[in-house]
Amino acid sequence: MDAAEFRRRGKEMVDYVADYLENIEQRPVYPDLEPGYLRSLIPNEAPAEPETYEEIMKDVERVIMPGITHWHSPYFYAYFPAASSYPAMLADMLCTAIGCIGFSWAASPACTELETVMMDWLGKMLQLPEHFIAGTHGHGGGVIQGTASEATLMSLLAARCKAVRRVQASNSELPEAEIFSKLVAYTSEQTCKHTFMCYPNNLLRFLFLPGNKENMWMHIDAAYAGSAFICPEFRPLLNGVEYADSFNFNPHKWLLVNFDCSAMWVKKRADIIGAFKFEPLYLKHENQESGLVTDYRHWQIPLGRRFRSLKLWFVFRMYGLSGLQAHIRKQVGLAKEFESLVRADKRFEICAEVIMGLVCFRLKGSNELNQDLLKRITNGREIHLVPCQLSSRFVLRFAICARTTESRHIQQAWHHITQLTFELLQEPNH
Amino acid sequence: MDAAEFRRRGKEMVDYVADYLENIEQRPVYPDLEPGYLRSLIPNEAPAEPETYEEIMKDVERVIMPGITHWHSPYFYAYFPAASSYPAMLADMLCTAIGCIGFSWAASPACTELETVMMDWLGKMLQLPEHFIAGTHGHGGGVIQGTASEATLMSLLAARCKAVRRVQASNSELPEAEIFSKLVAYTSEQTCKHTFMCYPNNLLRFLFLPGNKENMWMHIDAAYAGSAFICPEFRPLLNGVEYADSFNFNPHKWLLVNFDCSAMWVKKRADIIGAFKFEPLYLKHENQESGLVTDYRHWQIPLGRRFRSLKLWFVFRMYGLSGLQAHIRKQVGLAKEFESLVRADKRFEICAEVIMGLVCFRLKGSNELNQDLLKRITNGREIHLVPCQLSSRFVLRFAICARTTESRHIQQAWHHITQLTFELLQEPNH
Repeated sequence: MDAAEFRRRGKEMVDYVADYLENIEQRPVYPDLEPGYLRSLIPNEAPAEPETYEEIMKDVERVIMPGITHWHSPYFYAYFPAASSYPAMLADMLCTAIGCIGFSWAASPACTELETVMMDWLGKMLQLPEHFIAGTHGHGGGVIQGTASEATLMSLLAARCKAVRRVQASNSELPEAEIFSKLVAYTSEQTCKHTFMCYPNNLLRFLFLPGNKENMWMHIDAAYAGSAFICPEFRPLLNGVEYADSFNFNPHKWLLVNFDCSAMWVKKRADIIGAFKFEPLYLKHENQESGLVTDYRHWQIPLGRRFRSLKLWFVFRMYGLSGLQAHIRKQVGLAKEFESLVRADKRFEICAEVIMGLVCFRLKGSNELNQDLLKRITNGREIHLVPCQLSSRFVLRFAICARTTESRHIQQAWHHITQLTFELLQEPNH
Repeated sequence: MDAAEFRRRGKEMVDYVADYLENIEQRPVYPDLEPGYLRSLIPNEAPAEPETYEEIMKDVERVIMPGITHWHSPYFYAYFPAASSYPAMLADMLCTAIGCIGFSWAASPACTELETVMMDWLGKMLQLPEHFIAGTHGHGGGVIQGTASEATLMSLLAARCKAVRRVQASNSELPEAEIFSKLVAYTSEQTCKHTFMCYPNNLLRFLFLPGNKENMWMHIDAAYAGSAFICPEFRPLLNGVEYADSFNFNPHKWLLVNFDCSAMWVKKRADIIGAFKFEPLYLKHENQESGLVTDYRHWQIPLGRRFRSLKLWFVFRMYGLSGLQAHIRKQVGLAKEFESLVRADKRFEICAEVIMGLVCFRLKGSNELNQDLLKRITNGREIHLVPCQLSSRFVLRFAICARTTESRHIQQAWHHITQLTFELLQEPNH
């Protein structure tokens, strides 16, 4: 495929994407197929000779689309939102085309510098403490990680490195392994998976009270909720962040920036960089010791990195802060609307305070009853949601996800749920 | 931006991308600017109200392009190749638009299943041992990681988990922390950064002989070279892979698939999955215990994951195996061509056998002399390359990188290098 064919196919793909997103409501939100469906639809081996583009696009509809759970359907209320917007998609096309690998400043200065400034913009939108903002000439700054898991892992590694240094400062003979075996990580009951990976289970303790002990590294993960803090009315929920050593949230969840893009800030750049430095000659460059540049490879697990800040830049500018706030407020409003519908029906109960875009609800009655209801919803394939467990109760989660969800979708979803409930409660065994 | 505007802007972006790549030779391959250049070119804060798309695209040329190191210029010979091709870019647009997060089979069955089958296709192209191929109903299979660093980290975690289980099987009382403190990782002298991150330094030993000790986990990282193994003439270099527990390489380096896409296989799926399982109720689905599906979140550091196998599918089909082999062979041929030019000039020497796309060479003489030459090359900005150190000698690396590099670029690059060399050797102090 040469540039001329790319021009043609690229424009066709733009239309395919626009068509897909404009008509997504007409597709069943959750696929109806058996595990292993795909293998029988395509050959066992790569073709020896090239195929045509038409053949491939035909297979996108034949093979791929029937197996997609449509995360951007306004009838998708499962898991959590995966952010998406047209400006972010355009930026991503540009990012792919530039295709630089920004492991050091010299490997593409614009890639590094735009990231630093965009993280400052975002930090200011969230009213983060000044020590997290690089442009204030403090000791901190921001970095884009792939996911919150990677941000959490990096904060654990930084904390571990700092603890080892502190112990070794007073006892330089103590081997690292012995220090490692004495470190303890505290976490809340609702922690994510990566704390478990890094620490032996017997050194992981669950924390029920905020414990800001001396010499403790405090990391805050606001993966979903973080985006809402650009609205002054939600910002108080982040109070206390000034005590944190590191903080992250995912613009790729709720801030209209497509996956992957997890924003992380650290109070002291030296702490995170200290966790590991990788300095072979081929990555050195003349400005690296100037104190003026950032080599982001020291801030993350991978060596390579995409030019992800382009997505932030396009989205911030095309929406403006006011547009982003409007998006958050609209989605919170839709959650409140759904909450009202639930509260008005005496057969149901709300199971947790509705603060942002998630409504946890259930039928008053047994867990089995609610499992039955969810099964009917899943099999109906008109809307999609998943459960959670709250204090041993089986609860249905209704998460406002797609950017294009409107009031009429919420009304339609509730109408569908009540209809299935009516059928369910007619059954003799209930 | 609505769908109608996206159709228009998307098509403009396709043309922008094609123009950029068609005319990339006319841009200086390496930027000429001071650290911190970008901050003064844009505002300190995100705009309160939306800006127009025209303003943003004007800034792409004003702010971004002057700060890009053009990795896809045929005059870029630095670091290592970052793969890129038009079919991969089209697939990436589709991936972004579908925007599913494939952490479980149910979260988008096509995303999981295409990945499993594509990893089988790729494994067969490399003639990997059968136990790595999922479709043979063995115990192994493939997964797409973001980078080789993540693949290496996953193999370390899997190895650690397996070792702990083995020790605890005979001594169930021993705390994990104590076992951890006795585990040892062996690595070659030329290891990548992530081994250092996971292990205390005093438990990391350098390995000078292949040590297939009993109960040792062997991981092979062929990040760059791996792509060449699709050619029968290079495949013997991979002999011994049948003894490995895990293997990975990066199609995003040399197999025309844009970053990020690192291919990893494990001999036993249970080993890697055992490293950590994260099973909250909201991620459970009815097929997960069927033995028929894969939930890839257990195979990787992040929870979320893009639909990256689309890129492999498009590239494999648009190029065919023959087209991919031709690409590898052409680039190796260009490296051999450059090698011949160097060997024909008695002032220079080749410093390492040229096997694939990398030529290590230097001027016969001091390290300072070669550092001077590289400085002139870098400042000239006509071509871009970086150094390495081989047995304490400062060596210039000439890596064939861009897909569009042709013989005429190699000839031009060598002409440029000899001209700078001529000037350098005229200086009185040499």
